[in-house]
Amino acid sequence: MALVFPFHPRVTVTLLVLLSVLSLAAGGKLLVVSVDGSPWFSTQELLGILRRKGHEIVVVAPEVTLHLKPSENFALKTYPVPFTQDEMDGNARAFFKDAFEEGSFLERFFRLQEKLKILTESAFITCEQLLNNKEIIRYLEESKFDALFTDPVFPCGAILAEHLSIPSVYFARGMPCGLDSEATQCPSPPSYIPRPFTGNADRMNFLQRAKNILVDASNLFLCNFFFQPYEKLASEFLQRDVTVLELLRKASVWLLRYEFVLDYPRPMMPNMIALGGINCAHKQLPQEFEAIVNASGEHGIVVFSLGSMVSEIPMKKAMEIADALGSVPQTVLWRYTGEVPPNLPKNVKLVKWLPQNDLLAHPKTRAFITHGGSHGVYEGICNAVPMVIMPLFGDQMDNAKRVESRGAGLTLNILEMTSKDISDALKAVINDKKYKENIQRLSDLHLDRPIHPLDLAVHWVEFVMRHKGAPHLRPAAHDLNWIQYHSLDVIAFLLAVVLLFLFISLKCCMFCCRRCCSKKGRKSKSKSKTH
Amino acid sequence: MALVFPFHPRVTVTLLVLLSVLSLAAGGKLLVVSVDGSPWFSTQELLGILRRKGHEIVVVAPEVTLHLKPSENFALKTYPVPFTQDEMDGNARAFFKDAFEEGSFLERFFRLQEKLKILTESAFITCEQLLNNKEIIRYLEESKFDALFTDPVFPCGAILAEHLSIPSVYFARGMPCGLDSEATQCPSPPSYIPRPFTGNADRMNFLQRAKNILVDASNLFLCNFFFQPYEKLASEFLQRDVTVLELLRKASVWLLRYEFVLDYPRPMMPNMIALGGINCAHKQLPQEFEAIVNASGEHGIVVFSLGSMVSEIPMKKAMEIADALGSVPQTVLWRYTGEVPPNLPKNVKLVKWLPQNDLLAHPKTRAFITHGGSHGVYEGICNAVPMVIMPLFGDQMDNAKRVESRGAGLTLNILEMTSKDISDALKAVINDKKYKENIQRLSDLHLDRPIHPLDLAVHWVEFVMRHKGAPHLRPAAHDLNWIQYHSLDVIAFLLAVVLLFLFISLKCCMFCCRRCCSKKGRKSKSKSKTH
Repeated sequence: MALVFPFHPRVTVTLLVLLSVLSLAAGGKLLVVSVDGSPWFSTQELLGILRRKGHEIVVVAPEVTLHLKPSENFALKTYPVPFTQDEMDGNARAFFKDAFEEGSFLERFFRLQEKLKILTESAFITCEQLLNNKEIIRYLEESKFDALFTDPVFPCGAILAEHLSIPSVYFARGMPCGLDSEATQCPSPPSYIPRPFTGNADRMNFLQRAKNILVDASNLFLCNFFFQPYEKLASEFLQRDVTVLELLRKASVWLLRYEFVLDYPRPMMPNMIALGGINCAHKQLPQEFEAIVNASGEHGIVVFSLGSMVSEIPMKKAMEIADALGSVPQTVLWRYTGEVPPNLPKNVKLVKWLPQNDLLAHPKTRAFITHGGSHGVYEGICNAVPMVIMPLFGDQMDNAKRVESRGAGLTLNILEMTSKDISDALKAVINDKKYKENIQRLSDLHLDRPIHPLDLAVHWVEFVMRHKGAPHLRPAAHDLNWIQYHSLDVIAFLLAVVLLFLFISLKCCMFCCRRCCSKKGRKSKSKSKTH
Repeated sequence: MALVFPFHPRVTVTLLVLLSVLSLAAGGKLLVVSVDGSPWFSTQELLGILRRKGHEIVVVAPEVTLHLKPSENFALKTYPVPFTQDEMDGNARAFFKDAFEEGSFLERFFRLQEKLKILTESAFITCEQLLNNKEIIRYLEESKFDALFTDPVFPCGAILAEHLSIPSVYFARGMPCGLDSEATQCPSPPSYIPRPFTGNADRMNFLQRAKNILVDASNLFLCNFFFQPYEKLASEFLQRDVTVLELLRKASVWLLRYEFVLDYPRPMMPNMIALGGINCAHKQLPQEFEAIVNASGEHGIVVFSLGSMVSEIPMKKAMEIADALGSVPQTVLWRYTGEVPPNLPKNVKLVKWLPQNDLLAHPKTRAFITHGGSHGVYEGICNAVPMVIMPLFGDQMDNAKRVESRGAGLTLNILEMTSKDISDALKAVINDKKYKENIQRLSDLHLDRPIHPLDLAVHWVEFVMRHKGAPHLRPAAHDLNWIQYHSLDVIAFLLAVVLLFLFISLKCCMFCCRRCCSKKGRKSKSKSKTH
């Protein structure tokens, strides 16, 4: 039955606008799926603000998670998975422990791949369990959400958004195998946009550019390896053949954890919002940490954390690190949950957790030793603290290269570094003022923005909820195939026309020449006859 | 002499940061060059805000301008030009009058080109006069500006920025011959980004895509026609060979008067800031207009303006328009300075000027008759007023197509339209509620933004002044030539490697086969011998 308003059309329009504004004021309904690991930390802050603005938030998560915990800001709906918390933590620990284990490049590569397979498989099983959980799916179908918020790296959220016919907001730093560029139709010329994990910067020589293109070619297989299981699952669940790319292309807005102080300038599409530094909102430093910092005297402190995922380091390495930390006069706050190294110097305080961003914000903080995760690196930039980076995995190598190439920190190879290397690097970033000046310049540029990334993220989530998506930001490129997009059909047609024209012109010329010659020939013949 | 601070390095850094903050608080120094015509209106507002924020602004302009007038917000430095105000106004009038004159397509094209040549020539002479004015140039050299703000369509500002070695901010809707894409290194695939003046939308059929590519090809010649005189002038002035493209590539930030409710979604570079709707800030409606609007009764008003440049319309056309305006019950406010049509109906009030945006904002405004300039169209969208568009020139046809394709207005051909056409179109946009609904939807999307475009413009001008440019937003693509950018060298190399590999493999196979065959042959021979 159509809704009929017994008013003049103009009054009806005004009423509808008012109703939509009121429905916004009453808050929207947001579904959050497939966000865990370090992206959860900034998601949590975002959800807190959305909750305070009156929106209703439901987070769907497996019973076993890495960081996701219940909160008063959202309703948590959990579903069972066929593994325990210990098994999951063990897998994650094993994965990160691997980064410290030596071996030839090939040995390490295959070991890493094996561990990665275990992690991605458990993510896939988690997704399978969700989609097969009839009770939760029925609940979601009945709940009438306004939008879905998800980390697209695990495309479970994308499948659900399609099933529920609701618009989605993605929150990511990038996608495996460059699928984000394809899904957003964002041009990404390999000539100056370095591919992840290549160690390339934006200025590349010939061989680096060749490496970049080869990575693009290998992505065709990598994408298949990573996403094929999800395609099968999605096709079964949605009861029609779909590809993951097809699903990702439907995203309304991509909130991307990068921007152009750390990351290299590159094209963006209108629905790609750069939010690098979203995790830099400050809170009050807890009293116990304030006391430690204040007690550090004129030398101040060094903050040291290899991220929430690394719980233990091989003892030999840990002792080398401890040895190096003892060589600086600063108090070192080291987030570490493994076995305490017996040579732990007096100036090092081990803690199970530390308020990283708030410690970095303290004016007494002199340096930051980090694994180079994008969250940590942005916190280093926000707070203008020079860094010593020990990358372990993923985009951490690339982040480290970016910081180092800007003279704002130094990078160490976690496998090869000696105690002296660590000590030298740490002393350099603390005492050589160029590191502080460079990170200060980056920080000034980064913080000089018209709006805080967290507010920008809130705006776009609300925008998608209010307007049921953002179709006006969807480029028409999505409707073209590869040949059409690159205008190859038009170029071939125009070339054919030009060639045809040249051919006909040539034929005409030859025909004219022949006629002239034959006329001349006849003339000379007739002349010779008359003579 | 180097500046030496007698402090600890860390104290020095803090002091330097403090000093830079203080210098900002004391205000920067902005030079404004080559902004006239309709872009001046929004520039003026922007300069007003910058002035109130404590910045010093100097506008350099010829003694004869279209709209630029002295103001308390800036110091105006003028220089003489070899033509009078009457001559300039006459040229502009003749140019716009031409739009109403009939003739075959070719006749109109050549007439328009002739008039356009006169206008661009006078702009070029203006630039020449500025660069040859030793007194002003010396003053500018001595004034030590922090940044230069200019409309890059006339590249006089770009030449000056290069000479003065100061960063520049461009304010434009686009550039002739697609030079903006080239200068920003922004990808602009012709397969879904319609070229100006083609009448194409973002969804094109094969022939429209072919037309788009042919326009790209013709741009090579058009750019030459338009910018070659400036290249000669710039090379002489800067005393080295430069191209206009080379100068434009140095812009720190491009403030672009478009966004994606009116314009089609397309890639953007990090230093391209979309500011469509920058001109929609409301002021109080003057009392005389308030009175007219209030007296219009339940039917409300229609706002009619063909822009500040059209002063008169041929009498026959004016009478047809007047006739049509009489057919609606609304009061029509018509901005018109030409001879009053004798058949002017009672509901039409001719005015020499009207506060267009503030009138459109009035809830009693039912429709907007406009020539489709981007300023006017954005004001129509901001205020959700359905439009009847009579495009005259330039991007107005494209703007009209965009509004019409979104069902938010109707377009009329200014040469062919009859009194009935105008009346029908006007009645349709007023009475058919779909137009109001569509423009309301566009308006809701357009106004739902995290920050007002005017504030965004202020932020970026200040950013460039504070940081002496924005080099971190400059893509590395600027350092590549055409072959490198498109990776053609790498692709050729990889192809060569693959072909070489195939060739060697084939040769090896053939060699092996031959050896096998010859062995067999020898064997069979030796066999036959033994037999």
